Amino acid sequence: MRLLKVDTLQEAREKLLKAAAGKPLKTEKVHFASSLGRVLAEDMKSEENIPGFRRSTVDGYAVRAIDTQGVTESIPVFLDVIETVEMGVAPTKKVGPGQAIYVPTGGMVPEGADAMVMIEFCEKFDETSIAVYDPVSPGRNVVTIGEDIAKGRGFLSKGQVIRPQEVGVLASAGVFEPEVFSPWKVTVISTGDELVGGEATPEKGQIRDINTYSVSAAAARLGFEVIGTKVLKDDEALIEATVKEAMAVSDLVVVSGGSSQGEKDHTADVMDRLSGGGVFTHGIALKPGKPTILGYDDARETVLVGLPGHPAAAMMVFELMIGWLWRTLTGQKERPMVVAEITENVAAAGGRATCQLVELEDEDGAYKAVPIFGKSGLMTTLTRADGYVLIETNEEGLKEGQQVKVRLF
Amino acid sequence: MRLLKVDTLQEAREKLLKAAAGKPLKTEKVHFASSLGRVLAEDMKSEENIPGFRRSTVDGYAVRAIDTQGVTESIPVFLDVIETVEMGVAPTKKVGPGQAIYVPTGGMVPEGADAMVMIEFCEKFDETSIAVYDPVSPGRNVVTIGEDIAKGRGFLSKGQVIRPQEVGVLASAGVFEPEVFSPWKVTVISTGDELVGGEATPEKGQIRDINTYSVSAAAARLGFEVIGTKVLKDDEALIEATVKEAMAVSDLVVVSGGSSQGEKDHTADVMDRLSGGGVFTHGIALKPGKPTILGYDDARETVLVGLPGHPAAAMMVFELMIGWLWRTLTGQKERPMVVAEITENVAAAGGRATCQLVELEDEDGAYKAVPIFGKSGLMTTLTRADGYVLIETNEEGLKEGQQVKVRLF
Repeated sequence: MRLLKVDTLQEAREKLLKAAAGKPLKTEKVHFASSLGRVLAEDMKSEENIPGFRRSTVDGYAVRAIDTQGVTESIPVFLDVIETVEMGVAPTKKVGPGQAIYVPTGGMVPEGADAMVMIEFCEKFDETSIAVYDPVSPGRNVVTIGEDIAKGRGFLSKGQVIRPQEVGVLASAGVFEPEVFSPWKVTVISTGDELVGGEATPEKGQIRDINTYSVSAAAARLGFEVIGTKVLKDDEALIEATVKEAMAVSDLVVVSGGSSQGEKDHTADVMDRLSGGGVFTHGIALKPGKPTILGYDDARETVLVGLPGHPAAAMMVFELMIGWLWRTLTGQKERPMVVAEITENVAAAGGRATCQLVELEDEDGAYKAVPIFGKSGLMTTLTRADGYVLIETNEEGLKEGQQVKVRLF
Repeated sequence: MRLLKVDTLQEAREKLLKAAAGKPLKTEKVHFASSLGRVLAEDMKSEENIPGFRRSTVDGYAVRAIDTQGVTESIPVFLDVIETVEMGVAPTKKVGPGQAIYVPTGGMVPEGADAMVMIEFCEKFDETSIAVYDPVSPGRNVVTIGEDIAKGRGFLSKGQVIRPQEVGVLASAGVFEPEVFSPWKVTVISTGDELVGGEATPEKGQIRDINTYSVSAAAARLGFEVIGTKVLKDDEALIEATVKEAMAVSDLVVVSGGSSQGEKDHTADVMDRLSGGGVFTHGIALKPGKPTILGYDDARETVLVGLPGHPAAAMMVFELMIGWLWRTLTGQKERPMVVAEITENVAAAGGRATCQLVELEDEDGAYKAVPIFGKSGLMTTLTRADGYVLIETNEEGLKEGQQVKVRLF
């Protein structure tokens, strides 16, 4: 049996990134109201100041701060109220010395005034004047023009995943059609003579296909568009025809199973042939996930990935390679990890990076990471896990009590 | 000006949960392949064992472990190879004493055998026999029947948010239509004379409506179905008619703006009238978010929420009250938080719970939480934030260098 010539995780990632760098990322405009979860493809600069006028943050009176200098609770200043500003309407007058204009929260602060006194610190003296008991400094209780977003200044960066607050700020700035990255079109193919697809009942020796579903879901979570899935027997010609067809219409073709170097493992040969020698990694020093194939077809600009057949390994490798690649290409910030104390020793796999699944337990405000051990390929090890700890190649194993960083699923 | 009679955050949550407990949660069946992000409404038990037969985790030979006792690298045991099992096909023979059957990874282990020897530790001796150099113990390299999911045992719990691995395990167990919680139907209404809805250009004194967009996005992220949005002037009759209409078809009606107790603040009165006195909270001791209204209409089983008009406060309160309520009602596990060191003192707001926005910085493997200060209502304070620290009522403020738990957005 031939031994795999394996890359380290780092080497494989570098090769993958280098290959995919030749693939132009497409972008598209979407309506901001349906942009949740999309990734911004451009730095956003505002064409206007937000707010576009000075706004009051309180219900009260717009005044000249200088008029309130030295007032106290016992020695107020008396000001003439010359107007009442309504919400959504510009004031018609200016505030002059000794004058005040009523402005509600969010209303427009009139010219001449440079501060707002909260209504709680004012008293109606007669029909047209108030006593003010609060000495305010200039700028007090006023949002200045452009204080939220200044005209011409960046307010959102390329690579930002759009959350509800980004939807809000796009609304605020009047950016109705932000440019976002177009999702990759993905085909997911599962191979194996033992697999039963769809909702058929497996016979003895057969199992239900999992990978088209779990990998498609992982792809969907990255924002990809899954354009097709197939469950195939281990038939080289059939696999080749299907992959070829998929490459013509997909940015990414994922094939699980048949990725080792045994007699019945056709994936690497098929991918290498179809991409004109484009397979650059066959085997990653990774646990789980050694039998992984990475390739790139220059002509069709298609990324090719062969995943292990084991469902748990397939999902992990998809996340570690393709999830990582997509986030890197689109400039996404790394998601914060959870620092936790590992509750048991975890052996490192000599020379291989190790993905250790863990369950998190919250103990009086500190997190414990409980390693989940189990035979590779058991799907329930993944459903029990809140995340995983990545032990890099050549790092030592984990010692009980050590602080680790958990990447959440 | 009347003072608000305020609840603490804890009191308000208790009242909200108690009220909403009267509202039956609907459930529905969805196809598992499109169930990503949904919340399971039932504990899942398997009707079958997964795997349903003993599977090999390696390429190698199925043997009786006892036959390999005492073998070493120099003293192998010789076994007769009586069959080669194909993937997806049941073996036709049993392994007897002195016999072995070839089984590929994932293939079915034949009766009689109780362990698998990896092919690397075997050598072909002649056409029909092998030398085995590895003493294996019973169970070695074999996944037993039901080891992943045992028949009749629970394998997923109610309240579980479906991730890619849950999609996979549902596929594996043949649960094609899991029962999930039906999303709440939500109407989001934004009120204010200063607001300009849609894509119109604001005039002096006006601003674009943000809340229908950001709150709808926050609702969508919880899995809710937003069935309508409206931007209304501060007109009591108009607001009342609109809320009434929305209540007839919504599980949740959210109105932002007009939630204080000023002259133009109609939301509480409107909600109280329409729900037959169902408003139970008007004001929460929370920064930001004091002017919050909570109510429940028994007749229509509709949850009513009045949010502050300030967009940042509106989003935070929606998350703290409705996000919290939905996760609690559906039994979701609390998302792990990120433990970080706060980089500046943060004053607690005497007697009020405080939501302090923070930006996370990763410094050599330890997180720093940098507080984001800014006038309430500035949307960009929220877009800069990775999450927030909740300082509960009557807790002290945060001291520079203190460990805090950051809830991620």
